[in-house]
Amino acid sequence: MDAPSQVSSGSQPGSGSRTEAVADGIRARIAARQLAPGSRIPSVRAFAQAMSVSKSTVVEAYERLAAEGAIVARPGSGFYVAGKTRPLVLKAMGPELDRAVDPMWLSRLQQTGSGLMQPGAGLLPGDWLPDASVRRGLRAVARTEAAVLTQYDSPYGYGPLRALIALRVAEKGVQAEPDQIVLVDSATQALDLICRFLLQPGDTVLVDDPCYYNFLSLLRAHRVAVVGVPMTPAGPDLAALATLLAEHHPRFYLTNSALQNPTGTSLAPATAHRVLKLCEAHDTLIVEDEIFGDLEPEPAPRLAGFDGLDRVIQIGGFSKTLTAAMRCGWIALRPDWVEPLVDLKLSLSLGNGHVAAALAHGLLTDGTYRRALAETRRRVAGAMTRAVRDLRACGLELWAQPRGGYFLWMRLPDGGDAAEVARRALPRGMVLAPGVVFSPSGGWTDFLRFNVAHCAEPRVMATLREVL
Amino acid sequence: MDAPSQVSSGSQPGSGSRTEAVADGIRARIAARQLAPGSRIPSVRAFAQAMSVSKSTVVEAYERLAAEGAIVARPGSGFYVAGKTRPLVLKAMGPELDRAVDPMWLSRLQQTGSGLMQPGAGLLPGDWLPDASVRRGLRAVARTEAAVLTQYDSPYGYGPLRALIALRVAEKGVQAEPDQIVLVDSATQALDLICRFLLQPGDTVLVDDPCYYNFLSLLRAHRVAVVGVPMTPAGPDLAALATLLAEHHPRFYLTNSALQNPTGTSLAPATAHRVLKLCEAHDTLIVEDEIFGDLEPEPAPRLAGFDGLDRVIQIGGFSKTLTAAMRCGWIALRPDWVEPLVDLKLSLSLGNGHVAAALAHGLLTDGTYRRALAETRRRVAGAMTRAVRDLRACGLELWAQPRGGYFLWMRLPDGGDAAEVARRALPRGMVLAPGVVFSPSGGWTDFLRFNVAHCAEPRVMATLREVL
Repeated sequence: MDAPSQVSSGSQPGSGSRTEAVADGIRARIAARQLAPGSRIPSVRAFAQAMSVSKSTVVEAYERLAAEGAIVARPGSGFYVAGKTRPLVLKAMGPELDRAVDPMWLSRLQQTGSGLMQPGAGLLPGDWLPDASVRRGLRAVARTEAAVLTQYDSPYGYGPLRALIALRVAEKGVQAEPDQIVLVDSATQALDLICRFLLQPGDTVLVDDPCYYNFLSLLRAHRVAVVGVPMTPAGPDLAALATLLAEHHPRFYLTNSALQNPTGTSLAPATAHRVLKLCEAHDTLIVEDEIFGDLEPEPAPRLAGFDGLDRVIQIGGFSKTLTAAMRCGWIALRPDWVEPLVDLKLSLSLGNGHVAAALAHGLLTDGTYRRALAETRRRVAGAMTRAVRDLRACGLELWAQPRGGYFLWMRLPDGGDAAEVARRALPRGMVLAPGVVFSPSGGWTDFLRFNVAHCAEPRVMATLREVL
Repeated sequence: MDAPSQVSSGSQPGSGSRTEAVADGIRARIAARQLAPGSRIPSVRAFAQAMSVSKSTVVEAYERLAAEGAIVARPGSGFYVAGKTRPLVLKAMGPELDRAVDPMWLSRLQQTGSGLMQPGAGLLPGDWLPDASVRRGLRAVARTEAAVLTQYDSPYGYGPLRALIALRVAEKGVQAEPDQIVLVDSATQALDLICRFLLQPGDTVLVDDPCYYNFLSLLRAHRVAVVGVPMTPAGPDLAALATLLAEHHPRFYLTNSALQNPTGTSLAPATAHRVLKLCEAHDTLIVEDEIFGDLEPEPAPRLAGFDGLDRVIQIGGFSKTLTAAMRCGWIALRPDWVEPLVDLKLSLSLGNGHVAAALAHGLLTDGTYRRALAETRRRVAGAMTRAVRDLRACGLELWAQPRGGYFLWMRLPDGGDAAEVARRALPRGMVLAPGVVFSPSGGWTDFLRFNVAHCAEPRVMATLREVL
C-alpha cells in the first residue's frame, strides 16, 4: 500500500488543515479501494506516526470521517470503512458490457444452446459427438467393480487414467511419469487449481493478447492483474514479452503452444526456445494449456518438452475434442509440487468423480476417442477450407492459416468495428465473437473468431453479409 | 498495512540513525509478513513521505537492505522483498503434525481405504452402499437423451435435480424455489464456492469448536482467520457467540444444525432463535451445512427455516448418506445472489457434470435413495446402541446422546491425552480421530470421535482397550 501523502511540517498540531489532510489520506485510500468496505483502517497510533501528527489530530480526523459516514467506529475494536463487504461479482469488476461483447454471456450461451446461430462458438456441434459410444461406455462402467461405484477415487485421480495421460503427454515430447499427473474434472478446473496453488491477490499474470476469454474471467476471480503479450503468427511477440516480463514480474505466463485460441497459430521452435530463455531470466513460470493439442496434424514444439516440467506446468482436458459431458482434466507438474497440490485439491473437493473418471478411461481406451478424433480432424479440415473461402468471399481477411483445429481469426476490412457488427447480428439471430472479448488490452477491435464447424449452414454467410 | 514507525524528528537527514530507522521499518514489515517474498516494497518517494525523511535517506536505507540480501533491486521497476513467492502449501501454514493428528493424512486415508481399522472415520463402510442400484442407475443414464451425454449441463445445474432439491429442502422447513438452488459436485465444493464468493484474504470466519476438520483445511486455503465458538449439547455457547461476533466481526458463521460433526448434537429451537438474533445484530451471515440432515429421525430446527434464505445460505450433498461416487452438491441462497454465483461457478468450471447429475437424479427418484436411507438409519441406530455400550465398557464417557447419525463424541476418563492414545493405536493397525484434530483452538484434547458403523468389528474394541 502506498504511504499516505506527507502532511506539511509547518502547521500546528490540531490545526484544521492538518486534520483535513489526515482525513483526506483516508478518503483517498477508500476511493482507490486500497481500503475496502468493511475493512479496518489504521489505528490512531499507527496513522499518527505515519502522518507525523499527534494522535489527537487523527482522532479529530476520524471523528470527522465518521460524522460524514465514510467510516464507522466499533467500540473496543477500532474504525472500519463503512459499507458491507461485497460478494465477488465478476461483472461488477469491470465496465458494464452489452451482451454482444460480454464474455460471461457468451459462455452461458454456449452451455445452454439456444436456437441461435453461433459461428464464433468455442465448442464443436453436439451432433458431431459420439453419443452412441458414450452410451456404450456408461454400460461398461455399470459392469465395473463395486469400489468404483461407491468409493472415493484416489486423491491423485484414477490410477489407470493418470498412466494413460502420462503416455499421451509423452507422445507430444514431454517427459512425465504417472506420478506427475494430477486429475481434476476439466482443463479449466485444472487452471483454477494451479491459480489457487501459485497466486496471491495483487500478483500479475501474463496471457496472450488475444486469448481464451474465460482465462480473463477466471483470473479476475483470483483478483490478479492481467497483462497481455501481443500474438504474432509464430507465437508471442518476443520483444514485447521481454519488456513485459521485466516490467511486471508476472507469477506465470499462460499460453497455448498448439492451435492457440483464438488465433489458431502454433509456436515455432525458435520462438519456443526464446520464450523459455526469457521466462527463465525473469524467474517466471509457464502454464501451457494443451486443450487443443490433439487436433494438430503433427505436434508443434511444447515448452514443457524443451524445458521439462521444471518451469512449465501443463494442463489439458477432453471437452473440446470429445464431449463436454466427459469430466476429465489433468495437470502435469514437477514431482515436488504434486503432494501439496493434491492436499489442496482434496481440501476443496475438486475432481475425484470416480464414475466419470472410469468412463473417461473407457472412452480413451476402447477406440472411441481415437475414432472420434480422426473423424473430427477429417471434418474440421474440410470445413476449414470451405470456411476460409466463404469468409474471404465476404471480404474478411485471414490473419494466419492454422495448421489444424477449428478456429479462424478473421479481420474486418478497413479497420471496421467488430463489436458493432456483432450488435447488428444479434437481432438477426446470430451470435458473433468479436475480438475485443478476447483481449486483455481491449484491442483487436476489428477481428472476429470463427468456428469452422459452425460455418457451413448457408444462413450464416447470408446473415454475415447483411451485417458486415 | 500499519504505518511504519515514526523517525525521530531531531536527527539530520542522512544520519546513520535515521537511515537505520528507515531500514528497520522495512525489516519489521518483512518479518511480520506484511511484505511477502517477491512483493514490491514502497517506492523511494512514497516511503520518504511516510517516514518524513529525504529520498536520499531512503535510497541509502534500501541500498543497505539490498546489500544484506533482504531486498533486491529490479532496475526500472523498484525494490522487491527477496525470496521466491511460495506456492500454497497447506501443511506449511501451521505447525508440523505427526500422522495421528494430521487432518490431511486422515482425509487421505479415508479416501484410499487401507486395510487399517478406522473406527473414527467420517464415511459409511463401502459395503453398506447400494452398488447394485448404482449399476442400474448408470444403465438408465446410458439410455437417456443424447444431449445429456454430449452437452454441457445448464450453468445452474441439472434442472430436474434443482427442482428435487428445492422440494427436499422444503421438507426441512426451508422455503426455497428451484431458482434459488445452484448445483455443484459436493457439499465441500459448495462451501468452497461460497467462500470464493464471500471471502477476501484476512477476513475472519466463525466455526463451531469442535467442527469437521476439513472445514479448517479449506478455510486455511482461503487465507482467512478461523475462530471457534465452543459447542454445548444444545448448540453453540450463546454467551461465547455474542462475545466472538462482537470481537471478530466474522464474515459468516459456519455450522451444522442437524447432527453436528463431530459432536452429533442438534440445534435446540430456543438456541436457533438466539443464534439468528445475535448474527443479525452483528451483520454476520450464516452458512448451514445440511450434509447429515437426512439421518435425523425428525427434523431439528433449521436456521434457514426460521430466517429464510436472507442471512442464511444452506449447502448439502449426498456423499455421506448415499455414495461418495455420486457427485452432487447443492447451494440454496437468496435470489439476487444466484446470478453472480453462477457466473463465478462457470468461470471456474465447477460442477456441470451432466452425466453425474442425471445419475444422481435417477437414484433420488427411482427409490434407491429412499431405500438406502431407510436401511442406513436402521443399521446405524442399532450400531449406535451397541457402540455406546461397548465404548462405555472401555471407560469412555458419552458427551451427549445424538438423535441420529453415526458419530459419537467420547471423552477419555480423567482428562487423558487422546492424541497419545491415537499414536499408540497406529502401530496396532487402528486409526483414531482425536479431538484436537477437530478444534480450531487446539482444545478437546481428551476427546475422540467414533463412527458407530465402524465399531462393530471385535478387533476394534479389543485394540482400543490395549491403548487406552
